[in-house]
Amino acid sequence: MIALGEILIELNALSPGPLRHVSYFEKHVAGSEANYCVAFVRLGNNCVYLGRVGEDEFGHNAIEWLRGKGVDVSHIKFDSSPTGIFFIQRDYPVPSQSESIYYRKGSAGSNLNPDDVDESLVKSANLVHSTGITLAISETAKEAVFKAFSLNEVRSFDTNIRLKLWTPEKARETIMRLLKVHPVKYLITDREDAEILLGKVEDPVKPLMEYTDVLIMKEGPHGASVYYEGRKHFSHGYSVPVRDVVGAGDALGGTFLSLVTSGFPIEKALDYAVVSSALNVTIRGDQENLPSIKDIETFLERVRNS
Amino acid sequence: MIALGEILIELNALSPGPLRHVSYFEKHVAGSEANYCVAFVRLGNNCVYLGRVGEDEFGHNAIEWLRGKGVDVSHIKFDSSPTGIFFIQRDYPVPSQSESIYYRKGSAGSNLNPDDVDESLVKSANLVHSTGITLAISETAKEAVFKAFSLNEVRSFDTNIRLKLWTPEKARETIMRLLKVHPVKYLITDREDAEILLGKVEDPVKPLMEYTDVLIMKEGPHGASVYYEGRKHFSHGYSVPVRDVVGAGDALGGTFLSLVTSGFPIEKALDYAVVSSALNVTIRGDQENLPSIKDIETFLERVRNS
Amino acid sequence: MIALGEILIELNALSPGPLRHVSYFEKHVAGSEANYCVAFVRLGNNCVYLGRVGEDEFGHNAIEWLRGKGVDVSHIKFDSSPTGIFFIQRDYPVPSQSESIYYRKGSAGSNLNPDDVDESLVKSANLVHSTGITLAISETAKEAVFKAFSLNEVRSFDTNIRLKLWTPEKARETIMRLLKVHPVKYLITDREDAEILLGKVEDPVKPLMEYTDVLIMKEGPHGASVYYEGRKHFSHGYSVPVRDVVGAGDALGGTFLSLVTSGFPIEKALDYAVVSSALNVTIRGDQENLPSIKDIETFLERVRNS
Amino acid sequence: MIALGEILIELNALSPGPLRHVSYFEKHVAGSEANYCVAFVRLGNNCVYLGRVGEDEFGHNAIEWLRGKGVDVSHIKFDSSPTGIFFIQRDYPVPSQSESIYYRKGSAGSNLNPDDVDESLVKSANLVHSTGITLAISETAKEAVFKAFSLNEVRSFDTNIRLKLWTPEKARETIMRLLKVHPVKYLITDREDAEILLGKVEDPVKPLMEYTDVLIMKEGPHGASVYYEGRKHFSHGYSVPVRDVVGAGDALGGTFLSLVTSGFPIEKALDYAVVSSALNVTIRGDQENLPSIKDIETFLERVRNS
Amino acid sequence: MIALGEILIELNALSPGPLRHVSYFEKHVAGSEANYCVAFVRLGNNCVYLGRVGEDEFGHNAIEWLRGKGVDVSHIKFDSSPTGIFFIQRDYPVPSQSESIYYRKGSAGSNLNPDDVDESLVKSANLVHSTGITLAISETAKEAVFKAFSLNEVRSFDTNIRLKLWTPEKARETIMRLLKVHPVKYLITDREDAEILLGKVEDPVKPLMEYTDVLIMKEGPHGASVYYEGRKHFSHGYSVPVRDVVGAGDALGGTFLSLVTSGFPIEKALDYAVVSSALNVTIRGDQENLPSIKDIETFLERVRNS
Amino acid sequence: MIALGEILIELNALSPGPLRHVSYFEKHVAGSEANYCVAFVRLGNNCVYLGRVGEDEFGHNAIEWLRGKGVDVSHIKFDSSPTGIFFIQRDYPVPSQSESIYYRKGSAGSNLNPDDVDESLVKSANLVHSTGITLAISETAKEAVFKAFSLNEVRSFDTNIRLKLWTPEKARETIMRLLKVHPVKYLITDREDAEILLGKVEDPVKPLMEYTDVLIMKEGPHGASVYYEGRKHFSHGYSVPVRDVVGAGDALGGTFLSLVTSGFPIEKALDYAVVSSALNVTIRGDQENLPSIKDIETFLERVRNS
Repeated sequence: MIALGEILIELNALSPGPLRHVSYFEKHVAGSEANYCVAFVRLGNNCVYLGRVGEDEFGHNAIEWLRGKGVDVSHIKFDSSPTGIFFIQRDYPVPSQSESIYYRKGSAGSNLNPDDVDESLVKSANLVHSTGITLAISETAKEAVFKAFSLNEVRSFDTNIRLKLWTPEKARETIMRLLKVHPVKYLITDREDAEILLGKVEDPVKPLMEYTDVLIMKEGPHGASVYYEGRKHFSHGYSVPVRDVVGAGDALGGTFLSLVTSGFPIEKALDYAVVSSALNVTIRGDQENLPSIKDIETFLERVRNS
Repeated sequence: MIALGEILIELNALSPGPLRHVSYFEKHVAGSEANYCVAFVRLGNNCVYLGRVGEDEFGHNAIEWLRGKGVDVSHIKFDSSPTGIFFIQRDYPVPSQSESIYYRKGSAGSNLNPDDVDESLVKSANLVHSTGITLAISETAKEAVFKAFSLNEVRSFDTNIRLKLWTPEKARETIMRLLKVHPVKYLITDREDAEILLGKVEDPVKPLMEYTDVLIMKEGPHGASVYYEGRKHFSHGYSVPVRDVVGAGDALGGTFLSLVTSGFPIEKALDYAVVSSALNVTIRGDQENLPSIKDIETFLERVRNS
Repeated sequence: MIALGEILIELNALSPGPLRHVSYFEKHVAGSEANYCVAFVRLGNNCVYLGRVGEDEFGHNAIEWLRGKGVDVSHIKFDSSPTGIFFIQRDYPVPSQSESIYYRKGSAGSNLNPDDVDESLVKSANLVHSTGITLAISETAKEAVFKAFSLNEVRSFDTNIRLKLWTPEKARETIMRLLKVHPVKYLITDREDAEILLGKVEDPVKPLMEYTDVLIMKEGPHGASVYYEGRKHFSHGYSVPVRDVVGAGDALGGTFLSLVTSGFPIEKALDYAVVSSALNVTIRGDQENLPSIKDIETFLERVRNS
Repeated sequence: MIALGEILIELNALSPGPLRHVSYFEKHVAGSEANYCVAFVRLGNNCVYLGRVGEDEFGHNAIEWLRGKGVDVSHIKFDSSPTGIFFIQRDYPVPSQSESIYYRKGSAGSNLNPDDVDESLVKSANLVHSTGITLAISETAKEAVFKAFSLNEVRSFDTNIRLKLWTPEKARETIMRLLKVHPVKYLITDREDAEILLGKVEDPVKPLMEYTDVLIMKEGPHGASVYYEGRKHFSHGYSVPVRDVVGAGDALGGTFLSLVTSGFPIEKALDYAVVSSALNVTIRGDQENLPSIKDIETFLERVRNS
Repeated sequence: MIALGEILIELNALSPGPLRHVSYFEKHVAGSEANYCVAFVRLGNNCVYLGRVGEDEFGHNAIEWLRGKGVDVSHIKFDSSPTGIFFIQRDYPVPSQSESIYYRKGSAGSNLNPDDVDESLVKSANLVHSTGITLAISETAKEAVFKAFSLNEVRSFDTNIRLKLWTPEKARETIMRLLKVHPVKYLITDREDAEILLGKVEDPVKPLMEYTDVLIMKEGPHGASVYYEGRKHFSHGYSVPVRDVVGAGDALGGTFLSLVTSGFPIEKALDYAVVSSALNVTIRGDQENLPSIKDIETFLERVRNS
Repeated sequence: MIALGEILIELNALSPGPLRHVSYFEKHVAGSEANYCVAFVRLGNNCVYLGRVGEDEFGHNAIEWLRGKGVDVSHIKFDSSPTGIFFIQRDYPVPSQSESIYYRKGSAGSNLNPDDVDESLVKSANLVHSTGITLAISETAKEAVFKAFSLNEVRSFDTNIRLKLWTPEKARETIMRLLKVHPVKYLITDREDAEILLGKVEDPVKPLMEYTDVLIMKEGPHGASVYYEGRKHFSHGYSVPVRDVVGAGDALGGTFLSLVTSGFPIEKALDYAVVSSALNVTIRGDQENLPSIKDIETFLERVRNS
């Protein structure tokens, strides 16, 4: 897989509550597409990351981490702007929920541009992936996604609309244009994003299926549904101790894509992906608890026996 | 509002279990009336704090914290005795419950006395508030409350009986005497305190209503009820991750009083106050998670949608 | 009571998830038989520990801790091999479950041997206790248990099969031989261990009762059952915040044995033992939250009232 | 005093070495002019802070902290841009030195502009203070300083040239222009900054004295010199455990200005200011160890006696 | 040895600077006489502790710790008052110095009284030890020391004057009376205490020698001198990283007394005692780094070779 | 370069003093040859690591870390034995010194054997490196080093004698045999090791030069000397805050070898290597502060200017 996006340094509040009263922050490497990449590698596939980091300690941090995880970082470029960061506020104002505070405007990652998209590399990939975040961070990053999607027909896309990065109108216009020009094989979304894209409709599934072969509709702690070839399959979620929900959706999407890439049947891939998502919320950090197949099966067996 | 009481430095066990095995403690500013004050200010009202702190680092700590929060600390006096402190033991012997261990005998705060009660200040307040704790810590503090209550007819009182500070008999005698001499507009209590005050009666509401216009009966995690003008309204509690329950009652009472002071209808004020109480138990520290109105409404909306 | 076994230094992951991403570890003193010993002492009985520790900082650590708790450590020997240690990985791969990673091969504790078993001491004890772990760690430790069990007819045994230490076949063969040669007064086990010992049978209780007067069948968070004199009693578990389940079984077994030794009726002893087990999972560390009788009764009363 | 500048949230590396390997960061409130303000208040004078913070948790954090310290925050404005932040890397690449990494481009603080400068307020102040940092962060902030300096003749200025914020050429041009148009009463600088302003000259003191009545030349751990009315006084530094040197210069400057404002003779004020600077490097955080007069005198007495 | 005094729970600031800005505290067991006791045991001698602790978690904490260390705690009594505690503020206002803030008025330990002094026990001891702190904490504790000293002629005394506990006048009067009535074999003091006891005299050694056979004059980091039989020996101190100096004097005194009790020549005992004192300041906590003889000799050898 | 050895997981005491009182440990990746490898890569050269890790979390941890750093880990094998670990005790019994406590007997790393040594790989390397540790951990590991050294004439060797792993006699016999059979280009040692290898000789340099072209004689904090072609050069050390000295020698050796491999003159390479060693002791962890050339030059420039 090739993923285009922005790697971020995450500063996760060590204690819950409003950030003004949080004294300590724990550093992680994050960024939606990077999360997808690590999920890919963790489950036995390869992933090339396309993006930019600052030529600073945080940039080196991100590259060393991803290389350690087995991601192909040879196409990541250094940029003179700083590596983007964000803070995670946990359990406030809503317990068991998290909020992201970005410091990524003008970041290295947002300087991703079409020239960074190596044509032969993208053409040779078995899957090209990006998300709504990359469309939102800058004009050049958006164009890079459009270019990459134009070079390879096997595409996946996670809507991941962040209203701190753009308006709903801009999100709708851009994402729908992308999907119209470059329909995808896999579309990952949830009901909130679907409402932004389609407005209030009774059933967002049907209109979305026009742009994708396989549609994943995430439903938070309840689980997720997959729609494909006229069929629907629902995988229920699991009750686990929640420490930070950020990254759960990427865990689900990345696990799903990696497993179907490995030849898993779609429904089983989603069942497993929902486990991955459940494991993800039990820790701070988006990538540290991305599971192997064996981990997922151990979990399922233990759940069955208890 | 004017609140009379003792500000304490709280040393909250960083890990759960018996204190003998706890190695690290986290410092907070607390004290029931101070908690009320901060809730008041956080929701847009003013609060003057009347009390004493030691002329020591902990005393300055308390004043800087409250001033930072916006409480009017200009009437707090320095005293040559040390600032009172207490430890919080969490999850032992009862999981999800906390226990307070006081080092406040002879403290600066307990030297509060009637001379500290500025007559014109108290007369001009729109609400005078204190709790059973202030009645219990010393004779002079008790007299200060009686004096303050004699100067202004708009009074609120939280029974807050702490059996580590006085006997049930002494608590009953003192509190009932206060309420008889100075009936209040708002009385905040729970069933345990009511039983100490009234003995085992079938329904403590009716006898208590003789001393108050509005009665808040707290019911722990289940929520709280308000009784007034012959009516009753119950606000149900919320299931949240519990880190430390100390301060939850003050959050409820302080939020309620502040909102009715701001003109909220009584029932809505209690609905909101119960949210404040739920948020409070999700963190260590009594004052750090006292919510704004916007926080409460975000919480309610998210609960409604999930 | 006399307990034979290996004291270990436990390094408990400070954060949940796979150990590769855990940066900090918290040290505790553990070891199944040591846990039993401390439970014994905490509930008012005496306990002599028979075993070996390394002549190193961790060995001294273990002895100082147990002596502090009131365990008779005068029979613990120093050994030139290092004190055994283990790591606890929490919440991975199964949330709310823990996994132990041992560094105890060739440890001081595994050098326990029959010569360490003081005949007159063992003969004079009112109970001799060991577990499947001690049988598994070395030939000489196994022989020490056989010798001790041959010297005193009042024996208790916790099957505690750890498949990281031996194969199921070896476990079955050794434990069944011990029970046949030296049937016990109290046998503590669970359904997984019973299946290893007996194979898949419909009801493991009956065959196990041939080797014991009293059988405790642990059922994890659901509680535990006791079988004796043809009777059965089930004590239900409690819902508590789970931080680390390691040691919960020892808390249950140790509390039960100590209380029956103190003259508690068997059923009440189990009811209390299940509370001890529940308290144990609320903290990291196996011995720090072993409760006194008063603690257990406070818990039960609070549960009843809420 | 009135100070114009940008309040920042500081994220100080909890462990030394390159940031890529630092996992935890400790939050503080900082910003050169805010440091000056707190030093002022700590030594018994008043200080009004003029600046902007984001309407976010970090902005409220900064305001609550400064208000707690006694700074007059009533003129701080909320801005829709985020509150600026910076990281401190300690002991790398040079042990006992620190490095700042800024995320402040386009921050709330940099939106300070001349309209924020309340004329009557500035005119009534007994001292108007700013630094080279405020000149560097934005055009509008620079203009705000020029406007404030034009309104009051009693000015102090700390050159504080940060080469991550502007080029040496730009720094020289801007600062020299300010000093020419608005010569100051107190100028605080060091030899590195002086070389940027004047080029390599044998003695920077004389040319600088053209723009100031009193010149403070900081010399790091060695101490500092003051030049005024043709005289020179050198105050030697102290050997103390160094944890973070960031803020030491502000401690020196702020303490000096506050003491001379209080009527201290210039030389004694510098002697005390150097102590303040020494205390400052013994802790992480710029404002937490700003000393009272009593603290300074205790230090001096203890040094004398040892 | 028998030691009379008050065991305290110490709450050591985790970070340096004024306590108002310290968020975390680390718990230790301390108290001057308890420090002496542990030093005694650590070096191979026995020590019985006479004193009282509260019947609370901190009291049990203290007893379990001392018992773990090998101190005979069977004569410690439980008292209904709380266990005394104190905070340690480090590096403020003087770097590398510490300050103690006590919460011990009316504590369990101060309820020590002559009835607690078991006559036959004290008579059978080979050394009876106490300090100026025990004389200061209460009338009854003072009387207990006088009684114990009247029962056994082999006495040691550490002046340990704490001006937060009594006035210099009271200290002088009480200590000089004790020494006159019950001259000691070993007197441990320093120049500050000597000045309080004797006033400003040119040489305090001679007058003090009237009350003791052996006089230890501590000189902080510089080392210590011993005077006996007309001779003087000076042992120089060592340059080590200083984390907390509290307890260094007790380490010196306790190590000296234990070694001479073991038959060490006086001068060698002091040389070793100064090493113990140096090791003590390298950690937080008074008792955790009290060295064995082997530790001291390893230190000396390594110093010699470097 | 190719390095043969054992990667270890290091558990560094979070607080100084005897391990029995250390509650928290911080995990790092270490192992002398791995430290050399990372130093190599950090300074711009390639390094292949030959060795084994356990198929466990710690093994994956080590591989991900080294791969992240840029080490070629494709030749590391997984082994069914556990990954070796060690603890670091700091500042006890000698302040500013550290002690290692190993749990590596029978570890995965010690199962390194000659079959793991890929002939063509080793032949093609520009340098083959190992240390006395690898000779000591097992017979098969020793043979692997002999085999590798027989395949390539450009060899470097660090004596690194650890007396916890073998006797002085065994160390001397083995290392001298290796050097006789396979003289090296670079030999790194210190005076203690030289005395073990040669006995007490007046000058160990001459006899050692028989086995090497270039000899590095480390002298701890004082610096290091290099001998080659009849010349000697001494590079003095630097005074820096010492947090953990473990790894300082590897930093020196690895930096030196990497720089001479890059074409640096020998004397300048040593000057830089000594800086690397100084930086290394300022942090816990062996590899986190290995500097780049730019880091070293920044350090030197700052030292020059201060």
